[in-house]
Amino acid sequence: MSAIFADASTSARQQHLLARVRDCSAATLGLLKGLSAEDCMLQSMPEASPMKWHVGHVTWFFETFLLEAHAPDFKAFDPAFRELFNSYYVGVGARHPRAERGLLSRPALDEVLAYQTAVHGRLFDWMGTVSLADELLDLIELGIHHQQQHQELMATDLKHHFWHNPGLPAWRPAGAAKPHASVAPMRFMKIDGGKIEIGTDDPGFAFDNERPRHPVWVQPFELATRVVCNADYLAFIEDGGYRRPELWLSDGWDACSLEGWQAPLYWLRGDSVWTLFTSQGERPLVGAEPVCHISYYEADAYARWAGARLPTEQEWEAAALQVCTDDTLRQGDFAETGRFHPRTLQAVPEAVGGLLGGVWEWTQSAYLPYPGFRTAAGAVGEYNGKFMINQMVLRGGSCATPASHIRTTYRNFFTPASRWQFSGVRLARP
Amino acid sequence: MSAIFADASTSARQQHLLARVRDCSAATLGLLKGLSAEDCMLQSMPEASPMKWHVGHVTWFFETFLLEAHAPDFKAFDPAFRELFNSYYVGVGARHPRAERGLLSRPALDEVLAYQTAVHGRLFDWMGTVSLADELLDLIELGIHHQQQHQELMATDLKHHFWHNPGLPAWRPAGAAKPHASVAPMRFMKIDGGKIEIGTDDPGFAFDNERPRHPVWVQPFELATRVVCNADYLAFIEDGGYRRPELWLSDGWDACSLEGWQAPLYWLRGDSVWTLFTSQGERPLVGAEPVCHISYYEADAYARWAGARLPTEQEWEAAALQVCTDDTLRQGDFAETGRFHPRTLQAVPEAVGGLLGGVWEWTQSAYLPYPGFRTAAGAVGEYNGKFMINQMVLRGGSCATPASHIRTTYRNFFTPASRWQFSGVRLARP
Amino acid sequence: MSAIFADASTSARQQHLLARVRDCSAATLGLLKGLSAEDCMLQSMPEASPMKWHVGHVTWFFETFLLEAHAPDFKAFDPAFRELFNSYYVGVGARHPRAERGLLSRPALDEVLAYQTAVHGRLFDWMGTVSLADELLDLIELGIHHQQQHQELMATDLKHHFWHNPGLPAWRPAGAAKPHASVAPMRFMKIDGGKIEIGTDDPGFAFDNERPRHPVWVQPFELATRVVCNADYLAFIEDGGYRRPELWLSDGWDACSLEGWQAPLYWLRGDSVWTLFTSQGERPLVGAEPVCHISYYEADAYARWAGARLPTEQEWEAAALQVCTDDTLRQGDFAETGRFHPRTLQAVPEAVGGLLGGVWEWTQSAYLPYPGFRTAAGAVGEYNGKFMINQMVLRGGSCATPASHIRTTYRNFFTPASRWQFSGVRLARP
Amino acid sequence: MSAIFADASTSARQQHLLARVRDCSAATLGLLKGLSAEDCMLQSMPEASPMKWHVGHVTWFFETFLLEAHAPDFKAFDPAFRELFNSYYVGVGARHPRAERGLLSRPALDEVLAYQTAVHGRLFDWMGTVSLADELLDLIELGIHHQQQHQELMATDLKHHFWHNPGLPAWRPAGAAKPHASVAPMRFMKIDGGKIEIGTDDPGFAFDNERPRHPVWVQPFELATRVVCNADYLAFIEDGGYRRPELWLSDGWDACSLEGWQAPLYWLRGDSVWTLFTSQGERPLVGAEPVCHISYYEADAYARWAGARLPTEQEWEAAALQVCTDDTLRQGDFAETGRFHPRTLQAVPEAVGGLLGGVWEWTQSAYLPYPGFRTAAGAVGEYNGKFMINQMVLRGGSCATPASHIRTTYRNFFTPASRWQFSGVRLARP
Repeated sequence: MSAIFADASTSARQQHLLARVRDCSAATLGLLKGLSAEDCMLQSMPEASPMKWHVGHVTWFFETFLLEAHAPDFKAFDPAFRELFNSYYVGVGARHPRAERGLLSRPALDEVLAYQTAVHGRLFDWMGTVSLADELLDLIELGIHHQQQHQELMATDLKHHFWHNPGLPAWRPAGAAKPHASVAPMRFMKIDGGKIEIGTDDPGFAFDNERPRHPVWVQPFELATRVVCNADYLAFIEDGGYRRPELWLSDGWDACSLEGWQAPLYWLRGDSVWTLFTSQGERPLVGAEPVCHISYYEADAYARWAGARLPTEQEWEAAALQVCTDDTLRQGDFAETGRFHPRTLQAVPEAVGGLLGGVWEWTQSAYLPYPGFRTAAGAVGEYNGKFMINQMVLRGGSCATPASHIRTTYRNFFTPASRWQFSGVRLARP
Repeated sequence: MSAIFADASTSARQQHLLARVRDCSAATLGLLKGLSAEDCMLQSMPEASPMKWHVGHVTWFFETFLLEAHAPDFKAFDPAFRELFNSYYVGVGARHPRAERGLLSRPALDEVLAYQTAVHGRLFDWMGTVSLADELLDLIELGIHHQQQHQELMATDLKHHFWHNPGLPAWRPAGAAKPHASVAPMRFMKIDGGKIEIGTDDPGFAFDNERPRHPVWVQPFELATRVVCNADYLAFIEDGGYRRPELWLSDGWDACSLEGWQAPLYWLRGDSVWTLFTSQGERPLVGAEPVCHISYYEADAYARWAGARLPTEQEWEAAALQVCTDDTLRQGDFAETGRFHPRTLQAVPEAVGGLLGGVWEWTQSAYLPYPGFRTAAGAVGEYNGKFMINQMVLRGGSCATPASHIRTTYRNFFTPASRWQFSGVRLARP
Repeated sequence: MSAIFADASTSARQQHLLARVRDCSAATLGLLKGLSAEDCMLQSMPEASPMKWHVGHVTWFFETFLLEAHAPDFKAFDPAFRELFNSYYVGVGARHPRAERGLLSRPALDEVLAYQTAVHGRLFDWMGTVSLADELLDLIELGIHHQQQHQELMATDLKHHFWHNPGLPAWRPAGAAKPHASVAPMRFMKIDGGKIEIGTDDPGFAFDNERPRHPVWVQPFELATRVVCNADYLAFIEDGGYRRPELWLSDGWDACSLEGWQAPLYWLRGDSVWTLFTSQGERPLVGAEPVCHISYYEADAYARWAGARLPTEQEWEAAALQVCTDDTLRQGDFAETGRFHPRTLQAVPEAVGGLLGGVWEWTQSAYLPYPGFRTAAGAVGEYNGKFMINQMVLRGGSCATPASHIRTTYRNFFTPASRWQFSGVRLARP
Repeated sequence: MSAIFADASTSARQQHLLARVRDCSAATLGLLKGLSAEDCMLQSMPEASPMKWHVGHVTWFFETFLLEAHAPDFKAFDPAFRELFNSYYVGVGARHPRAERGLLSRPALDEVLAYQTAVHGRLFDWMGTVSLADELLDLIELGIHHQQQHQELMATDLKHHFWHNPGLPAWRPAGAAKPHASVAPMRFMKIDGGKIEIGTDDPGFAFDNERPRHPVWVQPFELATRVVCNADYLAFIEDGGYRRPELWLSDGWDACSLEGWQAPLYWLRGDSVWTLFTSQGERPLVGAEPVCHISYYEADAYARWAGARLPTEQEWEAAALQVCTDDTLRQGDFAETGRFHPRTLQAVPEAVGGLLGGVWEWTQSAYLPYPGFRTAAGAVGEYNGKFMINQMVLRGGSCATPASHIRTTYRNFFTPASRWQFSGVRLARP
């Protein structure tokens, strides 16, 4: 154990990480604002966890992989939490069944918050007084990114939970109404091809699934300047998009029929007008907003209807390398806005814009390992690799993603029928 | 409306009912003692509702069938509750889906309690100041019995909810340990047969399903002096009772195999000893307690193994008519004990005892209408009649039944695979 | 073994039984007329077995319970058949899964017929030459009745199988068209009540579930002179019977909604006219025919709509005791007609008629043991008793029942959602 | 219509195709040898069709896309077949439900064979006398390849059907027993990387999913000289491969647990020895045979256990370009052997061998469109494109693939849990 104490005074990196853990932890707690203990226990489907569980789980991650594994004089806050708040790490032992997370009235929210406070406090103390080896700092950084991922899930899961309440509650203040009659027309811009390096070898943080950097051959193609907006998508619906099997992948049509899809998730068809369920409650559809909460199947069917296709993740990253500037992140539509709803599309010049933030963009790429991919050693190696099947890659982050969490090499992934994320679509061609 | 105000001063019956509604309402709230808002939102299966929902529903019953239908100047506490807290009354309109009652974080428990207070307050005012016609008093009395039924369900549902918490929480204080090494041996007593009147025509309260009183022909038979106890049942388990299909009804064996039953619900097999999950948490099995939380299938298989059978409900009621005295109810093991667990079987003389209270006793009778059965007019007519299929009758009440709720003519009913009630078994022969 | 050879020459009873086994066996084979080996392999649902399997199973019954158990020098035709053709007799060993009977292309139909021939031949030889003890003759008689039950199932299962063929094949010659514009109006006749003996103690054949004869108390009631006809039932449909939950039992409404029922099974709604799928293929609905292929739920909903109810099995049997004469069976509409479709209702005098034959009549009685019921010893004891749960009793036989198979004490039973039998409804009141 | 008659005498290509259609049709019928009409109706799961249906469907393909669409004086053999034998072509109209193909006792096998004869005869006449335009010849060639695909499915589906017969019937003559004590050790050979062209632009036949030829960047890697054999795989089983979740993809472990996998499909664990179910019935496991009937999940778990990985389809094709010679196809282990079971692995020199034939090789590539992929016009455009989701690519063909059907660019695809094809695994690294 002594080997991990490199020296007596903590490094600049460690001090910086300490500040980031504090900020991140505060952001997590901020998501609970306005919610009751009852709200924080909701679980509307097995895939969507209660807010309380998320808080417990991100805390568990630090307790298990950092404190328990490496801190001196470790004492578990509550030994039962080891199983309760383990998500899927087989290497760490048994797990409470995912579908029953909503049945955990105990520990109470207060107790979970006390757990969060105690573990983070212990972590802050440790980080503030003991110089930690780089491997531990790496784990801490992973823990921050892990927590940010769960922040996004807390936003999308909560929306799904509240969707099952007949009152359709709002949990964010309503913004000023901005009627946007129009949105800049979608154009297609040429993206150069050839041998391109994608993924990363950056010594800074990136998930294992973004590594290693490697060459791919991309053919020249065209990418849309903006994502598809609600007005675009409405034309698809009105043209019978949800009733024409020839537009759909076979599995997509099956899902559409079985689930009775007639519009994106959270759209409500009134007598004369469509409304949306958002973090501000139910409100009218705004045509200039990006369409979101669509599955891969819907994105793909829309693209076919529009005479286009989805980009691959290699193409998407190639475009990002060419067009993303330092301003891109600064201007992005991220979780820091606190709106948890994508903003309307701006009038844009003739350039590919908005790649980062707003809505996740489905790509035509299956989530599979990069050449030379290696999982991390130990239980954290289960983080990404074991999910590399039956999922499609999304790129770019969304209005629920913390800005400091996203990268152009970032690979998100969901099954093709998933709709509860802020998932949208950008077209490519030919 | 005026017709229902019979006279200016309220009747003795009305005053008595007012006191009973107050007591009943207090008993309902008493069941929430020690529970958090989170606990009160739990729903572990579609058949078992959250505590909060039960409180809302029994309140809804009074609001809908009494206040809304008959009280002057009615104003709904919250119009949305009409749908949220309707259980199954098609005649009253739409219902919130039963399986999603656990997703109602809103209304909060506090709001539901405010609803309970407001509606009961309004009812008390009305009952205290306006003389109500007999039909309305009948409805109020039905509402009291309805609420008592839900009190029992609150106890059994909560037990099921907490069973899904890995901590197996206790919610009642532990009683003094009473080690009972022995229980009086089971004997069989002769019960006379012939033409017997069962059911009731009593002008006092009884559910429609107990009416009308009618003759049946019962052949002489023998009934056990006491119900089957845990020690008896353990012998069945140890003799391979759960592994021998020849002892089971065909559907019962299917259920046993599919569900993986190896013991009654809430039994836990440790390395060397059986324990039970009870309202006092997990504790060792006591042989002298009645076996409970068994399905009809298990009761039937046990009886076959024991060379006996279940009594019919006619036989059970014939025996009750012969042996139940005024003391029976007074001595019964009912909800008023606050234990919500059946007490150990007493040493009994050579007589059939314990028919009322303790555990419900499965009978060999399907739940079907008595000759001449008629449902009440209006939506309350849905109370019992529409469930008269696919269920078996249980008799006698349990440790979770309020003493003032039970009668010897009382017919409870559950599907034959149900196990979460305090259901046990008494043998008959031949 | 020697004890069973009572004497050297066979008794009159034995000779009579031998003739009956021959006739019965011929009738079974007659049901295959016009069917291909492919037709005989069809299995459209787990509950409906292939024709080939039925033939194998009725043969297996004789081979297993008679020849193997009692005949000298027994040699199995094919040891694998012991498992393949065992339906549900746990006491006899393993069984081929019921839902996979349609996957038995081998043994081929020819081989199963050879099995049928060989086993029956062996049985005939044995019966013709060796005097058998009464217990064996009883078993043989049981085997005949068992085979007759399967004859009825062959007719109803085949109809269900062919229903899944888009060509809706006919398998019986079309009868002469008999347009019946009218049917005698339904009247209600008084049936006396009191202490009545039902069931049987007859030393002749009856199933164990009809025994013992025992007194019941029946109150006077009224029974309809005829069963409900298609024209009656059509009025129920046209009055919204399938869209009004208040007419249905709760479980019935669930089944109706889940299965999408809008009419009895085998009814087809054309643009302007209803047609029926029958053994003669698809043909127009005839109003004067008994409605059939309805579930208990539909029978019950119809009765409620009509302001009546179903009779109990005790009431039904009490009526049969009063009105069935020697002619009843002779005039009945049974399988011997070869039509496998109920004939139109005759103009009747003011009397309860048609109790036997035509369509089975759902009763309001659950299928439960009579007081003093005992199963037979050994594996044949599984015949009836283990199904005494979750089923409702039907009485009277149908157009697919052999005339020599039915009795007024006969108890048929199916789950309340079953529709593929020739099941209809007769009303009672009050 | 006249435009399609290019000239009076038929071209060499047309004559050649005519001969191929004849051969192909004969090969299809050859697969029915030794099977009864009952055997040909079996359907053991929705994914596996009856033999009879396959024959009808490949006939339907010619009738619908060639004769009906283009031949003069077309008259349907039976209009009902248009729906019965349509597999999934939405553009052609309604389809009989896939899961109910086993319920089509009618049309009888004889009738389907008459259909096959009539349509093929009509096709032969037409092809023999009228010069057809290239687009029609292209369609005919597609029809041949379509039929060959179904020939492979007939072999694998029949094996699955018979697997459900407790007698485990053989349908191919037993070969001479060849005890192979050993197999050449697996070695890894370097495969060069760089910019490589994969897919095809060949003007000859290839499926649309193999087009267009396009550059990819492949990094140098190593590929195993042979596929994994049963002896290799047995070591994985004996090392707990089916009990160690850390070796599996998360979805793979779920499938393994849910389905209770303990070995490849068709392996039977005896008391002391493993046996296999093959086209020759049940026989002992031969260690030197390729392992087959494993899912992608098992292939992937095996590779992880072995410290290797699956190749991508680009890597596989790059290797094939480098090592496949003219002899490869000639030496391959294909359907023409009539064994329908992979032969034992030969002692091989230090080279990658056996890429074509034997067993399909799972790749780590999802089945997705190549850059520039376009579906064919019309209903045949549904052939491949609409399945490009949720499936993984297999390469190389198997012992059930006709030799003239396979190409190095050929892309087969199945869902990752599929096991009823002759699917095996070849390792790559790093």
